[in-house]
Parts: sequence; structure tokens; C-alpha cells
Amino acid sequence: MTTPAPFLGGETRVVNIGLSLFAETLAALGVSVVSVDWRPPAGGDRRLAELLARAGDEAGAKPVTIADANRECLRRIQAGTATLVGLRPAREVVPGLGERTVLHAGPPVTWERMCGPMRGAIIGACLFEGWAKTPDDAVTLAESGALTFDPCHHHRAVGPMAGIVTPSMAVWVVENDACDTAAYATLNEGVGKVLRFGAYDRPVLDRFAWINRELAPILDGALRRAGGLDAKTLIARALTMGDECHNRTTAATSLLARELAPHVAAARAGDVEKALAFLARTDHFFLNIAMAACKAVLDGAHGIRGATVVTAMARNGVEFGIRASGTGDRWFTAPAPNVTGLYFPGYGPGDASPDLGDSAITEAAGLGGFAMAAAPAVVQFVGGTAELALDTTRRMYEITLGEHETFRIPALDFRGAPLGIDIRRVVETGIAPAIDTGLAHREAGVGQVGAGIAEAPIACFVQALEAFVAGLPA
Amino acid sequence: MTTPAPFLGGETRVVNIGLSLFAETLAALGVSVVSVDWRPPAGGDRRLAELLARAGDEAGAKPVTIADANRECLRRIQAGTATLVGLRPAREVVPGLGERTVLHAGPPVTWERMCGPMRGAIIGACLFEGWAKTPDDAVTLAESGALTFDPCHHHRAVGPMAGIVTPSMAVWVVENDACDTAAYATLNEGVGKVLRFGAYDRPVLDRFAWINRELAPILDGALRRAGGLDAKTLIARALTMGDECHNRTTAATSLLARELAPHVAAARAGDVEKALAFLARTDHFFLNIAMAACKAVLDGAHGIRGATVVTAMARNGVEFGIRASGTGDRWFTAPAPNVTGLYFPGYGPGDASPDLGDSAITEAAGLGGFAMAAAPAVVQFVGGTAELALDTTRRMYEITLGEHETFRIPALDFRGAPLGIDIRRVVETGIAPAIDTGLAHREAGVGQVGAGIAEAPIACFVQALEAFVAGLPA
Repeated sequence: MTTPAPFLGGETRVVNIGLSLFAETLAALGVSVVSVDWRPPAGGDRRLAELLARAGDEAGAKPVTIADANRECLRRIQAGTATLVGLRPAREVVPGLGERTVLHAGPPVTWERMCGPMRGAIIGACLFEGWAKTPDDAVTLAESGALTFDPCHHHRAVGPMAGIVTPSMAVWVVENDACDTAAYATLNEGVGKVLRFGAYDRPVLDRFAWINRELAPILDGALRRAGGLDAKTLIARALTMGDECHNRTTAATSLLARELAPHVAAARAGDVEKALAFLARTDHFFLNIAMAACKAVLDGAHGIRGATVVTAMARNGVEFGIRASGTGDRWFTAPAPNVTGLYFPGYGPGDASPDLGDSAITEAAGLGGFAMAAAPAVVQFVGGTAELALDTTRRMYEITLGEHETFRIPALDFRGAPLGIDIRRVVETGIAPAIDTGLAHREAGVGQVGAGIAEAPIACFVQALEAFVAGLPA
Repeated sequence: MTTPAPFLGGETRVVNIGLSLFAETLAALGVSVVSVDWRPPAGGDRRLAELLARAGDEAGAKPVTIADANRECLRRIQAGTATLVGLRPAREVVPGLGERTVLHAGPPVTWERMCGPMRGAIIGACLFEGWAKTPDDAVTLAESGALTFDPCHHHRAVGPMAGIVTPSMAVWVVENDACDTAAYATLNEGVGKVLRFGAYDRPVLDRFAWINRELAPILDGALRRAGGLDAKTLIARALTMGDECHNRTTAATSLLARELAPHVAAARAGDVEKALAFLARTDHFFLNIAMAACKAVLDGAHGIRGATVVTAMARNGVEFGIRASGTGDRWFTAPAPNVTGLYFPGYGPGDASPDLGDSAITEAAGLGGFAMAAAPAVVQFVGGTAELALDTTRRMYEITLGEHETFRIPALDFRGAPLGIDIRRVVETGIAPAIDTGLAHREAGVGQVGAGIAEAPIACFVQALEAFVAGLPA
């Protein structure tokens, strides 16, 4: 619970614990001093300290302790596989996706409360599906109650930013054979003015239609011809190539394009050149695959009684929500935070929607902000240095239970990425999970305005801990 | 000339300059000691110190000082471009490449003195060209004097390892428009049992023939359709993706394959699938392009009177040679060093040829060992840590005159790679340029046995300095 004190040499006269002010004063007086950055657990909050004490490693549903449950949870995450097998229309594969059902990012939210970019993406989806002829018609339809809104996460799916999935959209199919589960995600459209950031004008919809109706079948054919593709291994390689596989997927996309190109070319189905050219210029193309891979793996570790590991973090632009393995499908939510970041020319902080998207599933699996040390280019979004990238990853080890056996970080001498966010450690340390993310304009119809870094609200983890402890045997 | 002393705190009683032995003894006695790693210039050699004094920045052919000449040299390197325009049979483009001419890596060397892998590659080349029917015939031919041997560097070409170029081989054409020059390199065959490492059996030659006769025209067509490709920008991107572009070109190859794939697919000339599949599995494919790009840029900065910048480092497996901008086309040579590295299973240090290949042109241009900080995976070859990678690059700043404006290193907060090796600084500091490299079996016919890191011999730089000073106006 406390930070171990460094070795104290013979010259040290004073050990300062906690506030640095004392140490600075002593140092100014010429007194040799060693500072230990100690803070009381949970910021000194007695109620939280009691909850933490009740949720100690040896507690749990005997004879299985919390420590046992978490070990099993981590074992399943480490063992999880992520094979990209193909692409299908969502209606064929996504469970429970009825006609006129609209899946969205984050925890549940009604049309009335949705943020601008999510509404914009839904307008676009209605036009794409042919459910509406104009944006106004789409809004009327949404307000009428004729559409069913539900989180992607309730249907084994994940979506970046607005995260909209409707039945005609194509989705990647990622299988986790180790845990006999699968996950789904739409195709990435690139950055800027795109549907997932809330834009829906004609060029956006034309591109979206081409991606779903022409590109998807070409890539599906190539993937099936290739006999599938091991997305987990590809992610591991990309981590050695400057990606953290959330805000930066340049290497992963390049590896994917390079692996699929022979099969795309050989299949000769459709406009092969256009397909390969799109992959060549869309650096974020792999993001959605990474998300589906993380979802497939984490779903395999979800629902373990007594486990305090986070299995999903997701935002709908209004609320930030988390789920933990041992607390079932319940969401623990808090207001979505604002994102610190870099804006495209002409935009500033007042233009951005609060944190949005299911993409924080990557952080829950050890990627994104947790693997920032692998991708120093990402900290440029916040004017940071390579040291900030290293420090961010190092800090995440404080709130995780293990280190990834496959996802390794060269700059940390191939140490495994911090894996398995423990709700207890977040509450205890007050260290918020760091999340790399994009920035959507707060109004429907505009699109992406930047990218940056967000912090998960601690309140979600406090609620999860409360519910977890309430569920423990008395 | 001296290393600045670190700040001395109040507790320090002794400052130790130079040999660490004194400091260790004092420390053992409990005396507080600060060590300053100072060594006299040129290791205290008075003759070298005098040469260095004569070659000071203000010396030179007045009114152009050495400093002026070096600034112009660096300016040309920074401004140099490297556009990959296509592939042609060497006989069509490589200047002075007569029939029965065999170009090889490194400074000049006769058949009698050549190392095993170079002889092996020449045997393979003779079989490929149809000059000989059997390896024995090829040896007889080489011994007969009927072949003309000449360094690649004398013909605007560079070749990795044995570096053999004969008239029927296809070569990449890289143009430096800023300096109106061009450079050439053969295609990479992958690793292991390949011609450039001295292997020449049937599978090696079959692959080699396919690469030169089928793959090359496909890629040439794709490149011309694409309107060429900016290799300099691609290298800069690869440096942000874990490559140092010498021993590791995974990212560069992936970016190349991704960019060319649409054009390869569209051209539909030849076995497109086989071509793209070869690119997909050959991580070292970009190496030869990187070498040609560096050669094109450095040739543009060669031959500047009064400049002490190294414009080529190359090894023939017997001798290591360098050229400097201000000393014309003369080579300054020393015995090729051994390479510290990691061996493939079944091989060890006794099996390796000394340092071999023109690939050290990448180090002279700020890549390879000089950019090792960008590619911590490379230090695994020597059992090193990420810190060793950072330290190696940092050390190279001590012997270079500038920092690359385009090639930047994320882990050093996007600091430019160390650029422009100064023969004076190498002599003065005794710091040897670090070179990433492959390891060839010492006998002809075997191939690659590992990879590692070599140090350029200081003796080459001493000779270059002597010749440079001898050429200064009295």
C-alpha cells in the first residue's frame, strides 16, 4: 500500500514522507533529505479505506479468494486469442441486432441525452440505411421512438467515437478461440470529417457506403483466402513499431495492408486498386480491429465471481462507464471528462464534445495510454516529451495486476504492458487510467477536431468497489 | 575538447579526472568522489594533437575555412533528396559497368585476398550471369583474370554484405535532384542463405533469378505508375516506427509495400500475388533502398575542398575503408573488425567473416548505429538494453557536426539523428562510429549466421586526417 523507501545512505539526515514542501524547506536549509512520495490510501477517505480493507486479496467467496479470482481473470486475458476471420453485414453476426436497432458507444443513453456527434452519426446511419431521406427526417425518426438504441457492448461489439452500428454496416469478426467468444467492430473511415465523429454530408456518406458495400467484401475475400489473420500477434509487432494501437495504428495498418495485399490482388474481386489505395492512406484503419480484438479477449475474462479487474471502459460523450469482471454487466458511470489535446487549425477546447467512444477498451487490455511508452509520437498531442510517454506507462503499473506476456514495450526493455486494471488499486492510489483518444466537435455534422489524452473518472471505480463489496459474502 | 565537470555538491571531497581506478580506490576508503571522464585529445598522442591543431575550424584554403567547407557539406546532405524512380538492369544505368565487370562491397580488393562470402557471392553471380556452369568453373574464371573487380562505390552503387553487382542484375535507381546525382543498389533477397552472404546453391540462385527477372519488372512498373516514391520521407517515417533503417527495416518495408501495393495490383504484370507475398515476408527488403538513398545524398556532398566529413564507410571483409569529402576518392583503410553479435543456432564467433558490406553508408548518413535510439529492438542482437540504444546514439553526437533535420528520433524527443561524421572528432575523442550489421559465414557457400554491432577502426580516421592535413595549404 505504501511506496517502499529508497535505500538511505549514510549522509541522509531526514526522511520526508508525503508533502514535498517540507523536504524543499529542509533542502534549502542545507539538510540532507530523502523524499518518499507517500499518500494515505484513497486520499485518507475512511469509508473507502474500509471498503478496501473488506476487499483484500484474501477475501472473496471462500474457498476462492479475490486473489484467486483475479489470477484466473488475468490468466484468461493472457491466454485470449484474437483471430480476424472476415467481415460480414452486422445483421448476420451481431447477436440481438434487430432491424431498426442502433448500437452506440459507451453505457446506455437515450436520444434526448445524446451528445452532438453521436446524434450526427445516427443521422448519417439512418441515411445510409435508407430509413430517412433527409437529416430532418432522421431526427424525427429518432425522436419518434421507432429506433431501438442500445450500447455496442451489450452485443459483443465495440465502436470508436459515436460507435454507431446498424444492421447493414459491415463488421470485422474477431474470434477468441481460447475462451470461445467473438467480437465485432465496423470499418474505420479515416480521420477528419467522418461519420463516427458525427459528420454525415454527401461525401461522408458516399465514402461510408463504398467502405461497407465494396471495400468490406474485397477484404473479407482476402481474409478468408489468407485463412484469417492473427490480430494479437500483429498488435504485438506494432507495439515494437511506434504504435500504442489506439491513437496511433500506423504500423499495425501497414502490417495489415502488407499481409493482405497479396490476397487482395489475387482475388481480383472489385476495384482492388482503390481498396489497396484506401489502406495505404488510412493510418487509423487498424484501430477498429484492435478494439474488436481487445473486446474479444476481455469478454473472455468477464463474469468471474470475485474478480476486481476492469473488463470494459466506454464513453457515450455524456457519461463514462466501466464494467468489472466480478460485478457482471452493470455499468458504473460518471460524467464524461473533457479531453486535453491538440486541435486542428480553427478549433479549440470550447468546440469539443466530452470524452466519447468504446475505444478505451484498448486501455483495459494494456494498449493505448497504458502502452504510451511504445509510442512517444502520441504525446505530441499534448505537447509532451518521450519521458511523459514512459512515465504514463510506468504509472499504469501502479493500478494493474499484471504485465502482458505478448504485448511488450521496447523502450522499457520489452517489459510487458501494464495489464488488468484493478478497481481497488485505482481507488487506493487515486491514479486514473490514462486514455488516448480523438476529439469530436460537440455539434452534429462537423466531425473530428483534434486528438488528445483523457483521464477516467475515479468515481466510476469507487462505485464499482462499493457494488463489489456489497456483493461479497457477509 | 574536455568533458564539462558535473555540478559538485557540498559533500564532494575529491574530483577524479581520467582513470576510474583512483576513484574506485577512494570510494572503497569511504571518500566521497566525483569522477569526470576526461581523456586527453587523441589519447595523448602528441603527433595527432598537432595534426588536429593544424586542422582547426579556422584553417583551410582561405578565404574558405574548414568550418565553412563543413557547413556546405552538411547543407548539401540536409538538402539532398532520394527519389526512388524505378528499377533497371545494372548494365543500362550503372556508369562504367563493362561486361564481365563484377562490383563488390568495400574498398578495392583482389580475388586472391577476398573473404569467403565475397567469393561465394561472385561464384553465384557467375552462375546467374551464365559465365560459368559450375562453381569450380566460376573459381577458374575468377582466377584467370578474365573478370574485372571494382568497388561498387566507384560506380555510384552500394551493395550490402558481399555487395556483388553484375550487368544483368536489376538495380534500384535513386535520384538526388538537389545535387543532380543518382545511386544504385540491387534488390534484397531476405535473410539467411542468400547470395549476398555468400550462398549460391540452386534454391538461392532460383530465388535470385526470380527477384531480378520477374519481381524487378513488376516493381519497376508499379514505381513508374506511382510517379516514383520519396525514399527520404519514407525513411523519416520508419525512424518513428522502430527502424534504424540498417539492421531493422521492418517498418520501412511495410510502408513501401503498402504504398506500392495498389500500383502492383493495378498493373497486373506478372505474378502479382507472388511479388506482394515476397514483400510481405521480407522484412529487410528496404535495406538496399535505404543504402542507395544514403549513397545518393552523400555523393552529393562529396568532393568539397576543406571538408572533414566522412562521405562513405565500407568493408570488403578484409579491410574497412572510409572516404572523406575533402580528400577526394582516396580510401583510408584498416583491417576489417570483428562483429559483436548474436548467432543463429549452431553458429558462433569462430564462424563469422570480419565486417563486410557497403551498408555502413547508412551510418554515414545518420541511420543504423547512429539512429539506434530509434530501434531498441536492434540492441537485442548484443544482449543490450533500451538504454544502450539511447547511449549509442548519444555517443555518436560526440563525433558528428550536426543533427538531421528530417531523420528524427522519437525517444530523444524528436532530436535529429547525429549527422556528418567528422574525421577530426573521431581522432580527437577516440569514439568509433557504431555500425549495425549482419554476420556472414567466413566460408563461401554458407550464408548468414547472425547479426550484430561493429566499431569502425580509428586507424582509418587517423590516416584520413593525415592526408587531409597534408593537403592543406602550407
